[in-house]
Amino acid sequence: MVAGRDIDDLPKNAANHTALTPLWLLDRAAVVHPTRASVVHGSRRYTWRETYQRCRRLASALSNHSIGLGCTVAVIAPNIPALYEAHFGVPMAGAVLNAVNIRLNASTIAFLLGHSSASAVMVDQEFFDLAEEALKIMAEKSRSYKPPLLVVIGDESCDPKTLKYALGKGAIEYEKFLETGDPEFAWKPPEDEWQSIALGYTSGTTASPKGVVLHHRGAYLMSLCNPIVWGISEGAIYLWTLPMFHCNGWCFTWTLAALCGTNICLRQVTAKAVYSAIANHGVTHFCAAPVVLNAIVNAPPEETILPLPRVVHVMTAGAAPPPSVLLGMSQKGFRITHTYGLSETYGPSTVCAWKPEWDSQPPETQACLNARQGVRYVCLEGLDIVDTRTMQPVPADGTTIGEIVFRGNIVMKGYLKNPKANKEAFANGWYHSGDLAVKHPDGYIEIKDRSKDIIISGGENISSVEVENILYLHPAILEASVVARPDPRWGESPCAFVTLKPGLDKSDERRLAEDILKFCRSKMPAYWVPKSVVFGPLPKTATGKVQKHLLRAKAKEMFPVMSKL
Amino acid sequence: MVAGRDIDDLPKNAANHTALTPLWLLDRAAVVHPTRASVVHGSRRYTWRETYQRCRRLASALSNHSIGLGCTVAVIAPNIPALYEAHFGVPMAGAVLNAVNIRLNASTIAFLLGHSSASAVMVDQEFFDLAEEALKIMAEKSRSYKPPLLVVIGDESCDPKTLKYALGKGAIEYEKFLETGDPEFAWKPPEDEWQSIALGYTSGTTASPKGVVLHHRGAYLMSLCNPIVWGISEGAIYLWTLPMFHCNGWCFTWTLAALCGTNICLRQVTAKAVYSAIANHGVTHFCAAPVVLNAIVNAPPEETILPLPRVVHVMTAGAAPPPSVLLGMSQKGFRITHTYGLSETYGPSTVCAWKPEWDSQPPETQACLNARQGVRYVCLEGLDIVDTRTMQPVPADGTTIGEIVFRGNIVMKGYLKNPKANKEAFANGWYHSGDLAVKHPDGYIEIKDRSKDIIISGGENISSVEVENILYLHPAILEASVVARPDPRWGESPCAFVTLKPGLDKSDERRLAEDILKFCRSKMPAYWVPKSVVFGPLPKTATGKVQKHLLRAKAKEMFPVMSKL
Repeated sequence: MVAGRDIDDLPKNAANHTALTPLWLLDRAAVVHPTRASVVHGSRRYTWRETYQRCRRLASALSNHSIGLGCTVAVIAPNIPALYEAHFGVPMAGAVLNAVNIRLNASTIAFLLGHSSASAVMVDQEFFDLAEEALKIMAEKSRSYKPPLLVVIGDESCDPKTLKYALGKGAIEYEKFLETGDPEFAWKPPEDEWQSIALGYTSGTTASPKGVVLHHRGAYLMSLCNPIVWGISEGAIYLWTLPMFHCNGWCFTWTLAALCGTNICLRQVTAKAVYSAIANHGVTHFCAAPVVLNAIVNAPPEETILPLPRVVHVMTAGAAPPPSVLLGMSQKGFRITHTYGLSETYGPSTVCAWKPEWDSQPPETQACLNARQGVRYVCLEGLDIVDTRTMQPVPADGTTIGEIVFRGNIVMKGYLKNPKANKEAFANGWYHSGDLAVKHPDGYIEIKDRSKDIIISGGENISSVEVENILYLHPAILEASVVARPDPRWGESPCAFVTLKPGLDKSDERRLAEDILKFCRSKMPAYWVPKSVVFGPLPKTATGKVQKHLLRAKAKEMFPVMSKL
Repeated sequence: MVAGRDIDDLPKNAANHTALTPLWLLDRAAVVHPTRASVVHGSRRYTWRETYQRCRRLASALSNHSIGLGCTVAVIAPNIPALYEAHFGVPMAGAVLNAVNIRLNASTIAFLLGHSSASAVMVDQEFFDLAEEALKIMAEKSRSYKPPLLVVIGDESCDPKTLKYALGKGAIEYEKFLETGDPEFAWKPPEDEWQSIALGYTSGTTASPKGVVLHHRGAYLMSLCNPIVWGISEGAIYLWTLPMFHCNGWCFTWTLAALCGTNICLRQVTAKAVYSAIANHGVTHFCAAPVVLNAIVNAPPEETILPLPRVVHVMTAGAAPPPSVLLGMSQKGFRITHTYGLSETYGPSTVCAWKPEWDSQPPETQACLNARQGVRYVCLEGLDIVDTRTMQPVPADGTTIGEIVFRGNIVMKGYLKNPKANKEAFANGWYHSGDLAVKHPDGYIEIKDRSKDIIISGGENISSVEVENILYLHPAILEASVVARPDPRWGESPCAFVTLKPGLDKSDERRLAEDILKFCRSKMPAYWVPKSVVFGPLPKTATGKVQKHLLRAKAKEMFPVMSKL
């Protein structure tokens, strides 16, 4: 402080300053709504008082094993109560939560557990063999390997044999582990809100996963901002379709405590299960990647409960949703809020804020407006599209492509033990997303591609996303992904990988391919039209993102270009 | 950071950390909703783009006069656009806003301006003579007096003569002043979120006003929390009944920017004006002290527009509202959220969070439940009722009285240049409110009295608030305030000051006094029954709080006790 500035010369004290952390939100929920349902899973139903006690037990039990400050606790589980509880219990012990993607293979999980030096591994019984294999790989690879504390989470909906097997291998059962903890455990908030709360590994569309580290401050700010952006209010009934291991469920794990809402767990996400939860649990809100929306839109009538008993609000993000999918959802009565973000920005950090003047537009126009990634989140201080060579903002003309960059309090601390990646990611005082976008005259941004997914054909950029959006309009197409294939003349040209809607005759693929290409020629510039159409299922990450690097490899294999020797 | 704690060892950088401040919220509103109405005042209507430009002009114009870091800018104005703009423009210049209570007298204002060393005074034309007189007092009192920059805010709804007079005295007109500023002014966020943003003087129920200093961090957190607590959502139409000079309008000045909502200004608050704004501007939300609610409930039918065209949400606080007033409001279709707080806690910091299970209660029970001060705000970390001698929490039995204490990020920085008051206020790591309350078995707190307002009769505590709540049930009573009067036998006894509803025959006061006492005897313990009933208007502060110290003085004068010599 400048000397003599009386007006600023008032120091912090115990009464007027404390670290920002979402942990207080759970404490408050237990005080305000002790008997309200906090977490529901099958026949299990906890109240906020119980959830708070269970989280304190977990923190206490971990502390008894000297797991605290500087330690990492890995959880390998689908959306079950234990994973929700870990979002509070682990940081209450002072440790950092690493929620692991359950679709990774054992060797990748071995890499993560080693890289983060996990002190404890909590694993859902269904995934015990996966964890076991990962630990075996670690033991084989390192002579200094020290086995972590191993906790297995039993679930009555799973085969009792897998639990028995895990117990036989020396794992502690989660409920037994909780019993060793004190339900009144005197947890302490972090001394510094910059302290890490969570670690999440990027889902590996690139070779080596990077560990994204988040802090208490950002998690807290997201807890307060998510409701403003989405309009989700106190007491909401929230369905867990989005994996909690994906960026802490976009911080909705903590947001639900701020709202004193109810978490409806879901072990497996299917359109039928979503509709059934809406019917049986009074669900008002859920988050989902576009791939889940696609499944909901295309669900057979007998799996739906249409018309919906109430407006159901859906936040989507993760990949640019095709306008056709947005249109299908809104026609079924779902109200979509389209957001965009990355693990590195605590999940959603832009929102396509709906404008009342759009209400009078035709549904197709609305879907196109809403398919844009929009404007910055309320708690994000800086968002821009820049020419990365000059760091100058691109003009708001809707056509000039630049890189999306972020700045502010919901940008990650950095990648764990990866100074090189941090230097690149934080170059020039901005976080670089690697996503390419344009800025429209109304200030809304729209993603054109990942920088590595853009197709460069004869020197022209082709947005794979724009070609996909048009493919999605074809009546036979369920899913589409477009990548670059080698092209002897143009260097690269678009190649479409397509999944057909159920019930279509596969023997007819040749005719369909021709029809799709004809459709494309009528709706896009000639150089955008895919050179080839390949039918079959699309490889995806756990969060529903198409793994374009695998498709690119496949395209390269299918359409080799002769070396010019 | 502890050495070797890799997981925490990631430093802050320009991309991932910036000071929390509500100023970014205005920048965002201008980007997201540039053409939406931001501030409406009579025939004037600004958009968010315009408001942002005007605020940047103001910051720029102040900077041109070297007004910035460490400086204070006083504004003496009712709820007009210039005062709203000052909430952003002044801190964008780096300075601290002191919004002055317009009902103070000139000598008190002279004290405030001197105490805060105001560098500039912006004054609404209607209050120019008040400011002029205050400055004159300052000049007479101090030889080192340097006149501040003087800006007069013209308003077409006021008498042109007063503006002409001010200009003749050398004041700069506000719009002219804005023209000297740059609408693209490159304001900088504070380097440190602990930097002061606002100064507000306590309204003087005690002798010497204390200057409450608030920081950017707290103002920002309140901006995000007010919507969660109240359920006020994006694009709300908000009516300014609550003075912006009262604790920055409970931080709704900044909250409205977070919501990209619309501020409807109101120079003078009457029941008729409130109903008219609901009819003409589509108002969905307003905040008001109980005294305003009382006026709304008791407005003559021709001033109302009942039934309301939509649900109107009202946040009330400032003094404990009698259940009868809450009941009257809800019967008219207003939905009341009852909060409680102090200038020292950025305005509301507890909320009587409504529970769905109350919906099935009879309206009278609902009003009693909702008349309690409730639970802590989402962004308040600590709230308790303690025995101040031991600092131990009182039992949650609904009867044991203790002092309300606060702890967390929405507790003020402290009182300006008042180490003694700070030491007392922050004793034992808590902020001491001076309010006395009980904690109910459901964890909700209920105020029984200000510590200095409690009546001690024959050694028994009597809550003046509880006696008032019963008086409000009497059909002839419009307003009631109960204070201690000297009592030769019991030390103190309750004395009721009462305002009757309009249309009642004043000549009948004696009979009415007897009827009121009879009513009291049927509804309260004998020792609570007022010893005397005095009719007449109640003296109030600008924010509608009854000035009980004046009533106590009056009671002392009316009912003197002979000295025991």
